[in-house]
Amino acid sequence: MANSELRVFHGTSHPELGDKIIQYLGLPPGEIKISRFAGGEIYARILENVRGQSCVIVQTCTEKVNDDLMELFIIIDAMKRASAKTITAVIPHFGYARQDRKAASREPVSARLIANLLETAGADRVVTMDLHSDQIQGFFNIPVDTLTAMPILASYIKGKGLQDLAIVAPDTGRVKVAKKLADRVGAQLAILHKVRAEHHVSAVTHVVGDVKDKTVIITDDMIDTAGTITSGVDALREAGCRPEVYVLATHGIFSGSAVERISKSGFREVVVTDTLPIPEEKRFPGLEVLASAELLGEAIRRNYENRSITTLFD
Amino acid sequence: MANSELRVFHGTSHPELGDKIIQYLGLPPGEIKISRFAGGEIYARILENVRGQSCVIVQTCTEKVNDDLMELFIIIDAMKRASAKTITAVIPHFGYARQDRKAASREPVSARLIANLLETAGADRVVTMDLHSDQIQGFFNIPVDTLTAMPILASYIKGKGLQDLAIVAPDTGRVKVAKKLADRVGAQLAILHKVRAEHHVSAVTHVVGDVKDKTVIITDDMIDTAGTITSGVDALREAGCRPEVYVLATHGIFSGSAVERISKSGFREVVVTDTLPIPEEKRFPGLEVLASAELLGEAIRRNYENRSITTLFD
Amino acid sequence: MANSELRVFHGTSHPELGDKIIQYLGLPPGEIKISRFAGGEIYARILENVRGQSCVIVQTCTEKVNDDLMELFIIIDAMKRASAKTITAVIPHFGYARQDRKAASREPVSARLIANLLETAGADRVVTMDLHSDQIQGFFNIPVDTLTAMPILASYIKGKGLQDLAIVAPDTGRVKVAKKLADRVGAQLAILHKVRAEHHVSAVTHVVGDVKDKTVIITDDMIDTAGTITSGVDALREAGCRPEVYVLATHGIFSGSAVERISKSGFREVVVTDTLPIPEEKRFPGLEVLASAELLGEAIRRNYENRSITTLFD
Amino acid sequence: MANSELRVFHGTSHPELGDKIIQYLGLPPGEIKISRFAGGEIYARILENVRGQSCVIVQTCTEKVNDDLMELFIIIDAMKRASAKTITAVIPHFGYARQDRKAASREPVSARLIANLLETAGADRVVTMDLHSDQIQGFFNIPVDTLTAMPILASYIKGKGLQDLAIVAPDTGRVKVAKKLADRVGAQLAILHKVRAEHHVSAVTHVVGDVKDKTVIITDDMIDTAGTITSGVDALREAGCRPEVYVLATHGIFSGSAVERISKSGFREVVVTDTLPIPEEKRFPGLEVLASAELLGEAIRRNYENRSITTLFD
Amino acid sequence: MANSELRVFHGTSHPELGDKIIQYLGLPPGEIKISRFAGGEIYARILENVRGQSCVIVQTCTEKVNDDLMELFIIIDAMKRASAKTITAVIPHFGYARQDRKAASREPVSARLIANLLETAGADRVVTMDLHSDQIQGFFNIPVDTLTAMPILASYIKGKGLQDLAIVAPDTGRVKVAKKLADRVGAQLAILHKVRAEHHVSAVTHVVGDVKDKTVIITDDMIDTAGTITSGVDALREAGCRPEVYVLATHGIFSGSAVERISKSGFREVVVTDTLPIPEEKRFPGLEVLASAELLGEAIRRNYENRSITTLFD
Amino acid sequence: MANSELRVFHGTSHPELGDKIIQYLGLPPGEIKISRFAGGEIYARILENVRGQSCVIVQTCTEKVNDDLMELFIIIDAMKRASAKTITAVIPHFGYARQDRKAASREPVSARLIANLLETAGADRVVTMDLHSDQIQGFFNIPVDTLTAMPILASYIKGKGLQDLAIVAPDTGRVKVAKKLADRVGAQLAILHKVRAEHHVSAVTHVVGDVKDKTVIITDDMIDTAGTITSGVDALREAGCRPEVYVLATHGIFSGSAVERISKSGFREVVVTDTLPIPEEKRFPGLEVLASAELLGEAIRRNYENRSITTLFD
Repeated sequence: MANSELRVFHGTSHPELGDKIIQYLGLPPGEIKISRFAGGEIYARILENVRGQSCVIVQTCTEKVNDDLMELFIIIDAMKRASAKTITAVIPHFGYARQDRKAASREPVSARLIANLLETAGADRVVTMDLHSDQIQGFFNIPVDTLTAMPILASYIKGKGLQDLAIVAPDTGRVKVAKKLADRVGAQLAILHKVRAEHHVSAVTHVVGDVKDKTVIITDDMIDTAGTITSGVDALREAGCRPEVYVLATHGIFSGSAVERISKSGFREVVVTDTLPIPEEKRFPGLEVLASAELLGEAIRRNYENRSITTLFD
Repeated sequence: MANSELRVFHGTSHPELGDKIIQYLGLPPGEIKISRFAGGEIYARILENVRGQSCVIVQTCTEKVNDDLMELFIIIDAMKRASAKTITAVIPHFGYARQDRKAASREPVSARLIANLLETAGADRVVTMDLHSDQIQGFFNIPVDTLTAMPILASYIKGKGLQDLAIVAPDTGRVKVAKKLADRVGAQLAILHKVRAEHHVSAVTHVVGDVKDKTVIITDDMIDTAGTITSGVDALREAGCRPEVYVLATHGIFSGSAVERISKSGFREVVVTDTLPIPEEKRFPGLEVLASAELLGEAIRRNYENRSITTLFD
Repeated sequence: MANSELRVFHGTSHPELGDKIIQYLGLPPGEIKISRFAGGEIYARILENVRGQSCVIVQTCTEKVNDDLMELFIIIDAMKRASAKTITAVIPHFGYARQDRKAASREPVSARLIANLLETAGADRVVTMDLHSDQIQGFFNIPVDTLTAMPILASYIKGKGLQDLAIVAPDTGRVKVAKKLADRVGAQLAILHKVRAEHHVSAVTHVVGDVKDKTVIITDDMIDTAGTITSGVDALREAGCRPEVYVLATHGIFSGSAVERISKSGFREVVVTDTLPIPEEKRFPGLEVLASAELLGEAIRRNYENRSITTLFD
Repeated sequence: MANSELRVFHGTSHPELGDKIIQYLGLPPGEIKISRFAGGEIYARILENVRGQSCVIVQTCTEKVNDDLMELFIIIDAMKRASAKTITAVIPHFGYARQDRKAASREPVSARLIANLLETAGADRVVTMDLHSDQIQGFFNIPVDTLTAMPILASYIKGKGLQDLAIVAPDTGRVKVAKKLADRVGAQLAILHKVRAEHHVSAVTHVVGDVKDKTVIITDDMIDTAGTITSGVDALREAGCRPEVYVLATHGIFSGSAVERISKSGFREVVVTDTLPIPEEKRFPGLEVLASAELLGEAIRRNYENRSITTLFD
Repeated sequence: MANSELRVFHGTSHPELGDKIIQYLGLPPGEIKISRFAGGEIYARILENVRGQSCVIVQTCTEKVNDDLMELFIIIDAMKRASAKTITAVIPHFGYARQDRKAASREPVSARLIANLLETAGADRVVTMDLHSDQIQGFFNIPVDTLTAMPILASYIKGKGLQDLAIVAPDTGRVKVAKKLADRVGAQLAILHKVRAEHHVSAVTHVVGDVKDKTVIITDDMIDTAGTITSGVDALREAGCRPEVYVLATHGIFSGSAVERISKSGFREVVVTDTLPIPEEKRFPGLEVLASAELLGEAIRRNYENRSITTLFD
Repeated sequence: MANSELRVFHGTSHPELGDKIIQYLGLPPGEIKISRFAGGEIYARILENVRGQSCVIVQTCTEKVNDDLMELFIIIDAMKRASAKTITAVIPHFGYARQDRKAASREPVSARLIANLLETAGADRVVTMDLHSDQIQGFFNIPVDTLTAMPILASYIKGKGLQDLAIVAPDTGRVKVAKKLADRVGAQLAILHKVRAEHHVSAVTHVVGDVKDKTVIITDDMIDTAGTITSGVDALREAGCRPEVYVLATHGIFSGSAVERISKSGFREVVVTDTLPIPEEKRFPGLEVLASAELLGEAIRRNYENRSITTLFD
């Protein structure tokens, strides 16, 4: 029986990242044809023999998340029927991660649904980065390698040589992650949360913890509409923090009026990684995009070579 | 234990059809909130208690088929977790039906994939209309009620009192359906197929069967880009058919430049049902849209009442 | 076909609670024989006909959690093979909930494992209270009704008429729950977290937020060894809180030297519910045990009657 | 870990074909004992170690299709429990393929059922030839390699040097396959279909397309009772085709009075492959049986060697 | 939602028994068409609406066990796709029951395989009689009602008023069943087993236990080729038992030369039930066939009415 | 892709046996941390990279069988999520094996349940010894290697040079195993069974077969409370057997008052293997413990090397 070779393909959601990963691995790009019919349906065909091969498909979840996911399912189905030995879905930004529980009655748990759909389509393993909650790993029965950009982000911020830092969680669900960063860079911890006063329509953001005269770094797993962080920065400034405020996040979605909001808020820097494509019109002064391809590529390589991935983060 | 009541909800793909079905059934509309976040993710919440109820969700597949399907999966997940007794997915136009086999190597079988995903999401039954191929029923392990608009279409065309009819299948895969219609309206059968002559780039459409001096009715399950039927009509006219040509199909997608092509082809009438929304800009002279809500509604009712659906078509 | 009746059984983990639930529902107790062989194996036999009945089995997870779970699986298997119509596992305290993610490499996700095992054994639905994390709902494919004792706990504390309250989360993973309680009783929010200073062995507990001259209420989903809350109370007192400190939690495990630690800490009151049996030797001055049977019983009733459970918490 | 070797076994349905395949591959035959108890039950035991091996079992579906399938399931179960690494079911003629949809209400979809049963028994992959409909591939979740004898058949017919050919589909469901052959040999296309005139009991076969003075080749996936083709030949002759008529099909079942009917119809040649055993009493003048073992054997080899099978048909 | 009605169908394996069961239940027979194509494939179509009904299909396993099982799977598939509410397979004699373990390496466990195939086809419950081993219940994940003819058989033999009885197990695997009968009729227990002496080809049957001057009753779950019981009777006579020897079994297969063997052995009576059809040519003097339809019918009724079946055997 | 290496771990149920197996295989012990929280929950973490490795976990079922099984499930879950290539559960004594059927209505089939739970947790294969019934193999869908200590036990007893042996089955369910031993050592067969005389409370043990002046060896798969064998020995002595009585069993549980009972019974020797830990306080004069590690280790090695295990017992 012939050896199983590593073949890495990418979908259409973020071709630049896919190409960088393939380049990092020193592989020829996986040949695949993906197109879209006028009627909206996606067509995919793998153009090279993958019988018995270790196939990887890189597809992130952008603002057209439903197209991205359906494209991913369809490619996986094609790989499965083409007799791939194993199929690894590399999903740098895992969509629907925020719907990871029923916050109200009769809601879906969409993140679990996506996990089920991926397994049904035929994925054997998932590689992803900085899930919205760690528990999402448990939504899968197949192995999940959860990478984290925290070392990259922490290293970047440490390189600034900033003093009197306070790491701020933008809401009560994000404290655990803020804590990890605070420990890593040796900073204080503070928390924002919204309180809706009686008889009042709008909520007021409270700051828990001391940020006076501190250089504040708001940290989150993703920046979506940027509503929470931009409303939080006013409260932080009222609480006396230093004027230069940083924002750190793994995934930069920048949806809706995010860019406008951020531009008005006067952040010193907004730092994200390139797990998502950031088109020209979403790039603003102060935006810093760190590379994630090496991390993702190295995880793919170690998977293929049966080597530990954890040690990447030691 | 309380009785299970029939509750019918609809997604956002075709609200008019959903409302008509609910109206036909004389039910209050199922209360559901469906919205879309700026970042592209769909949110759904069922606003009424569905514990132990017989839930139906109407969602057709439009040109934004991936959004439609993901929305459907998410609503089903919410219903399942809200303890619905049974969940029936009513999908008047079932998307990805044409990818029902591997026509080339390393293609997906997307229609089977969708069937798997629906079952995984939690659907207990599917109701649909005029599947692209009958075998798609077999892609499901759950019961599928396949309705057909053929009686509606045949009855409409019979009402015209046309003479010397020829029913034309637009390609070799559609002959079986054309045959059924031909038998029903008492017409001749003819077939179009494309032949690629040696050394020539473009294919020529051949007519198999005699259409000379016949009133021709091209029939298909769906009209998508209308490329096949509009290229076919020239061949039919060359073969001597009468000038008035009709087109009959269940699903009117009219994607891409379909409307433009159809307008140039001089069809007498293009007859479809309302399994898909047809926006104003896609409506053209000669378009006839027949109602499908009664048929769908009656199938839902009979399912709920444990009565035969087959007898609908006797 | 005869009607399905509601039959409620309980395992051996917490008979008092089971009996109270059955009493609340006004039902005769489900007849079941559970015994243990000398060799350690559990034997269960259902002593009444359950064919076609709506069966409920109440079993909480105590310190002998493995026996409790295996007993539960075995009873469910017996019910399934005895042709029960539906099997609802009521697990007031869901064990292994803290192992809900891989915090380190090559750890299990035991909470997901338990969910899988329950589904495999044959459970159709789970009712539980105040899961360690909301995401555990998503570990199940079957419906889960997650009840919360928060209204009971909040109502109790409000009845005290205390002023200047601060709700304290004992670590960064518990802030979200503390926030909910804070909003409900109209209190400030504060957080404890441990910081390990360089070159030092022992960690120091930091207080984030202002507790000076506040009456502090530490809140958690469970009290296990009580290590976190007892080490936290010193930090809170150093930070100037009022002498009377309250602890509120749904599940009172009190394992290891919990009682000893609590006794030394001088809490005014430690308030839990009776989701777990608290033997005489674990009862200490200041312990307040609130009843959960009505809540659990009402949820069982509404499930059986197809009525909404959410409205219980409005 | 030792290498996985290719081991090919065959059942009792068509030993000659199995032996030819094994011979083509240059392998020693897989040792297996298959017997039948007086009470009708099949017994199978694999007589050589298959732990970790790539096992193939060749079993076609003859007129004792139920015995053939059950024998196949039983052998697969034995292989699975004997720790085979992979189990490939090679089913040259896939039984129950014609029941691939519900043509009438409350029919089974037996072809999907067989697919499910094969997967349940433990098959990891299926290799088959010229399925009755391509969609049957989609009845499987496991990879299916659908081989086609069309190149063999087309090459044979081309070798005859016949002129003015018309390829005839014996009914409207077979047009697509006829079209493929027509394109390959450069022939016209014609179609037979039955029309039941009003007030008449018996149906009349219509010819669609021009066969006048053509050498006609009726093509189908299989010849079972031969009723359709023999009743069709009269209509073709009435339509003026040349006297010599050929029949081409992959699978020669020749059940019931097929041989008698064919003998009366005066076909020039009836060409099939040896996917089915054709006993002496079914062999008639004009029958030509082409070899399929090389094709099947080569597919098995390429599967084992992770090489493309598609290229076999380029 | 309408009520679910009980509908009982039968396959072609034993129509007399099916009819008797339906008659016992006072129901009109379930309308179903079952036929066999010339090519060997089975066709089934249910001729009445079964949507939402409680469907029962009676099919025993005769000497054409593979046809019987495939027919059963196909009917179940048709019922499932026709939206039956529940499908109960009543299999009076469960085939392949003797292959319930791997007695030698690389054997199948066919009885488990059949259980899996039944569940995959869509059976919700199985009713059967006197399984070869009780453990076969555990091969199913669905509920199994195992009826026993022992009361019928014991009652018959008690009615004879025989004295000095010894119940004899024909081999070491059947002792447990013999013991049950011995306890029920108040008899001694004895066992036959074969010993292969060194250097000798043929095995000698040993009698363990005292049968001298006893009226011997050999008991087994089934009589297949009758080899074991007929070779055993000589050993028993050598051991001094009384001349009149009885044989009691639930299932009378009488395959191969069973009837011939039995006729030579001079049994006083051979008593079986009618779980299997016994054609005229297999009926011999001394054969007594007891009715099983009431027992099977009553089990079906109680299942439908949610009443205990165990109490049938109290 | 790197090779898959064999890594053998053990749980906490029987570390000595695990270490012996690892030693036999000449491997470094698999590094794993297993601990227990004060609240009773088990924690496991695998301390070495197992990505792509062939992992074996040795865990027997002792008197704390529920802890042992849950620990096993948790370790398997951790291995699965850590991307082990295959996971083999080596369970020398398989717990709950005696609950392998419903002996009374509404009992569980716990052995099947355990099989399901193991498969759900993620086991790919099971290796075990002398299952209580052979049919338990069929409770698994995954391959099971059932080893037997019979050659070890038979060889030991043959080494004694005893004459006039009778092998005695302690009840009617154990005759088949006794028969195998009897054939192997060339001995007579006898059986014990209990008869409950009318109007009497206590049952009397009957001896079937001749044990007069025989050296008796009672054989069973396991010795649990020793009730059956110790009550049987009196009946055997009354029946005139020689004073020295031996007991042979694979699994020595010795629960409850087993040791006390055995000590009073005056057995010459009680011979078991070390599939279970036997603490000092359970060791009594006449106890002989034979080694099983070589057999288990060799089975693991052959599995890994794709060699036959059956030949171990030729």
